[in-house]
Amino acid sequence: MTWLDLADDAPFDAWTLPYGVFSTPGEEPRVGVAVGSWVLDLAPLAAVEGLDGAHLFAQRTLNPFLAAGWRAWDAVRGWVLELVAEEPRRESVEPHLVPLHDVELHLPFAIADYVDFYASQTHAENVGQLFRPDSPALPAAWRHLPIGYHGRAGTVVPSGTPIVRPSGLRRVGGAGSDVEFGPSLRLDIEAEAGFVVGTPSPLGSRVPVGAFEEHVFGMVLVNDWSARDIQSFEYVPLGPFLGKSFATSVSPWVVPLAALAHARVSPPSRSPAVADYLRDEEPWGLDVDFEVSWNGTVVSRPPLRDLYWTPAQQLAHMTVNGASLRTGDLYASGTVSGPRPGGSGCFLELTWNGAEPVTLADGSQRSFLEDGDTVSIIATAPGPDGTRLRLGEVTGAIAPSP
Amino acid sequence: MTWLDLADDAPFDAWTLPYGVFSTPGEEPRVGVAVGSWVLDLAPLAAVEGLDGAHLFAQRTLNPFLAAGWRAWDAVRGWVLELVAEEPRRESVEPHLVPLHDVELHLPFAIADYVDFYASQTHAENVGQLFRPDSPALPAAWRHLPIGYHGRAGTVVPSGTPIVRPSGLRRVGGAGSDVEFGPSLRLDIEAEAGFVVGTPSPLGSRVPVGAFEEHVFGMVLVNDWSARDIQSFEYVPLGPFLGKSFATSVSPWVVPLAALAHARVSPPSRSPAVADYLRDEEPWGLDVDFEVSWNGTVVSRPPLRDLYWTPAQQLAHMTVNGASLRTGDLYASGTVSGPRPGGSGCFLELTWNGAEPVTLADGSQRSFLEDGDTVSIIATAPGPDGTRLRLGEVTGAIAPSP
Repeated sequence: MTWLDLADDAPFDAWTLPYGVFSTPGEEPRVGVAVGSWVLDLAPLAAVEGLDGAHLFAQRTLNPFLAAGWRAWDAVRGWVLELVAEEPRRESVEPHLVPLHDVELHLPFAIADYVDFYASQTHAENVGQLFRPDSPALPAAWRHLPIGYHGRAGTVVPSGTPIVRPSGLRRVGGAGSDVEFGPSLRLDIEAEAGFVVGTPSPLGSRVPVGAFEEHVFGMVLVNDWSARDIQSFEYVPLGPFLGKSFATSVSPWVVPLAALAHARVSPPSRSPAVADYLRDEEPWGLDVDFEVSWNGTVVSRPPLRDLYWTPAQQLAHMTVNGASLRTGDLYASGTVSGPRPGGSGCFLELTWNGAEPVTLADGSQRSFLEDGDTVSIIATAPGPDGTRLRLGEVTGAIAPSP
Repeated sequence: MTWLDLADDAPFDAWTLPYGVFSTPGEEPRVGVAVGSWVLDLAPLAAVEGLDGAHLFAQRTLNPFLAAGWRAWDAVRGWVLELVAEEPRRESVEPHLVPLHDVELHLPFAIADYVDFYASQTHAENVGQLFRPDSPALPAAWRHLPIGYHGRAGTVVPSGTPIVRPSGLRRVGGAGSDVEFGPSLRLDIEAEAGFVVGTPSPLGSRVPVGAFEEHVFGMVLVNDWSARDIQSFEYVPLGPFLGKSFATSVSPWVVPLAALAHARVSPPSRSPAVADYLRDEEPWGLDVDFEVSWNGTVVSRPPLRDLYWTPAQQLAHMTVNGASLRTGDLYASGTVSGPRPGGSGCFLELTWNGAEPVTLADGSQRSFLEDGDTVSIIATAPGPDGTRLRLGEVTGAIAPSP
């Protein structure tokens, strides 16, 4: 399938072929594709091969390539698949393979708007029980539409960026206790799938569920860091704000939707029946398995396949009121939590709001994040011929409050 | 005070001197300053005068000028004040005055993130009574911090852009009735003051209340169009989403903070005492009077001076968790409603959720917006020597759902 010599433990295979922005010392950031343990330096290779649009790769963000649209995405993926599959290409390709461990990876695209959904039923029910014990676990609208909100685009950071513990007002002793200011004491993660918009849509129009592939280029892994104490104090009635806006980490490699063709599954059945604009003909559930490591100990394996609302439905919902899309819009699934034990996508659920701490490999116990802790999220999905694709990693370590 | 011949009813005076982006037929959009009934074409004038940074004005957005920082803002304002005040400048300035009625006005700056607050006590109490009659009128955190949320930056549009009536899911018959899909039946406005960030701040740091003038360049008028039926169905627990994200209109002229020096007032007293990071030494309440016209009939005059949380406090709050600022960030006050009758900043309050319709000059009655309706919001503020400054206009007309 490829002339490259790919180690079994290489970060990527020769099918996923995700896009990112990398730089080598003394050179400008530019667009690359990850294959095995290398980055394929697209700009010079495309220039040598006389590829249309070679200039799209000599850029500091993926945005110009994203804006080029799905025909360009398909054409470039077809070309890259040939490059790594056909032995005669070896001679021209090899000079443009840069070892991954020699490069710096950057935020892969400039974020336009960032929207976060709340599409995992297990997560919504768990949070409902923990935050609103006197109300029904699911909000009234939850089964009617994909509940979502806008996050802060300006604080989306690439994997590896240190996460400074945020401060804010919160009730340390729970409901009824005094309001105090200080560093968050309940700092948490949210393991999510993020979707990257390439093709914009005009204000006043709708993007139907069936146009998902025309607008969305690919997927990233997202860690939507959350300060639960700040969030629970501030969020009524306008939703999360400072409890989320300090940082959201994304994986540096954007996996094209085309690479996920073998991961598509039918979503769970819905009741009541969904509104017409949310009806899906094609199954855009995705059989992606996440794995969350806390200081190196795997603490959960959240499955994306159970997501109640698919990314295609989320896109249709986001635009049904006529809101426009821009190249670089990012929208995420919300915390991915599976219905079975071991599938929690955040520590609030994993430790049941701190009541059931987890024990890490070094014997230490954790309820929420401590300074110096590192969280890494990886994901895999079914690939061609029974293979399992690696979809990258998003990682971050907690720096103390200044 | 100026050699220009300013009509009494001219849109602007010779002190406010707001910045915008304009174009004339066949020419590129560029930065101008409004004075009287003219636009001062800054780029060629700055070039002729050999001004440092003349290139900042030959741009399609204000962002490069905003990013230049407060020293540049002060220097340019001082220069423009001289241009319009000193008679000997007349000969060089006059060729660069373009009549306002000959220009097209554009979105004045590229919006980075858009945040909307909820800082008017009267508005928060009224909405609380209408949306949550069984709960305390003010949310628990309201007197502790300026509640806010992120809106959709990509659908901020300049004054005059048609507002397409949004569709979505809602309960037409109120709580307990069936969920239906269709065009909003309770389309509303929100009259707000918006603040434009020029100087960014790094991730992980805080911007104190006292640094407001170093970061914020100026003010725009905002109409945060709101579909109340869509909003009330969707907003628990993550806040407003599709009920707001279809459009937010801003005035095309950004009034520099420096022009509002005579409008500064002490904010209302707060109880309980605010947290240290929200304590304000300098009075940054603003004595701005809005006037809302519905199809030409003035229906309310909301006063900004009563705002509980000032824009300086809003900025400090927005960054106290370490969230960074970017040039072009826009944050708005939330609906401005005064405590006295006639001061409602939205029609939800003005008509008490439709129970008390208003009668317009043509004898027609209104509860919420009908197709073809036009809403214009203007504002004035105290200026030097007892004058009253005109701060521009934001207007929009409702187009039917497609």
